[in-house]
Amino acid sequence: MSVRDDIEEANRTLGKALANGDTARIASLYTQDAVLLPMGAPRMDGRAAIEAFFKQGLEGGFNDLTLETQDVTDAGDLAIEIGRWTSSAMGGDAGKYVVVWKKEAEGPKLQIDIFNSDTPPPTA
Amino acid sequence: MSVRDDIEEANRTLGKALANGDTARIASLYTQDAVLLPMGAPRMDGRAAIEAFFKQGLEGGFNDLTLETQDVTDAGDLAIEIGRWTSSAMGGDAGKYVVVWKKEAEGPKLQIDIFNSDTPPPTA
Repeated sequence: MSVRDDIEEANRTLGKALANGDTARIASLYTQDAVLLPMGAPRMDGRAAIEAFFKQGLEGGFNDLTLETQDVTDAGDLAIEIGRWTSSAMGGDAGKYVVVWKKEAEGPKLQIDIFNSDTPPPTA
Repeated sequence: MSVRDDIEEANRTLGKALANGDTARIASLYTQDAVLLPMGAPRMDGRAAIEAFFKQGLEGGFNDLTLETQDVTDAGDLAIEIGRWTSSAMGGDAGKYVVVWKKEAEGPKLQIDIFNSDTPPPTA
């Protein structure tokens, strides 16, 4: 399998784990020292913080996420993915993301994860 | 100079060019086929689209941006930066970004640029 195939499989696993409310499985897709840079919240470092973020999201109703890989750039023991995300949860939204994957023995793991929405904030 | 020094210098140049309204200078800091993934707008490919984005931002009053490098990961002819941005323009805001830099002969250029805000969208 190519790195891109491995990444797409990991993304499907993430979507399924979210639908199942399995935050431990989600956290296991990230490296131990991963950095999550979510919109609307500060930077989060490490698996425990990332699992807590998804747990809080699930409690708020965020239980649907589809990830679509657009570009993958191979960079030694890293790979950089640009993609689009869509979610039907909480009224629905869509946007873009960049993930830096670290190639580990069991497959690529999310090392850096940042995303945003295409939707402009409502003007006050 | 280290890659990190070069990146920090390019970031200062970007901030100054924005303050001066010099969108051609800003565009020249990106690679020809750079990808910009701004919050509140779709993906933009290439220097011309990126220059148009900054031009529109300036017309809306977005003329202040400070970039603070937090982590730099060297990856062959690429380098991956995690940082924080702050802006006093348009009421002020702050957030996070990830930039993938491509090492070109004259220095690193922005190849992939994605950012978001720490501020949650107001609830309706």
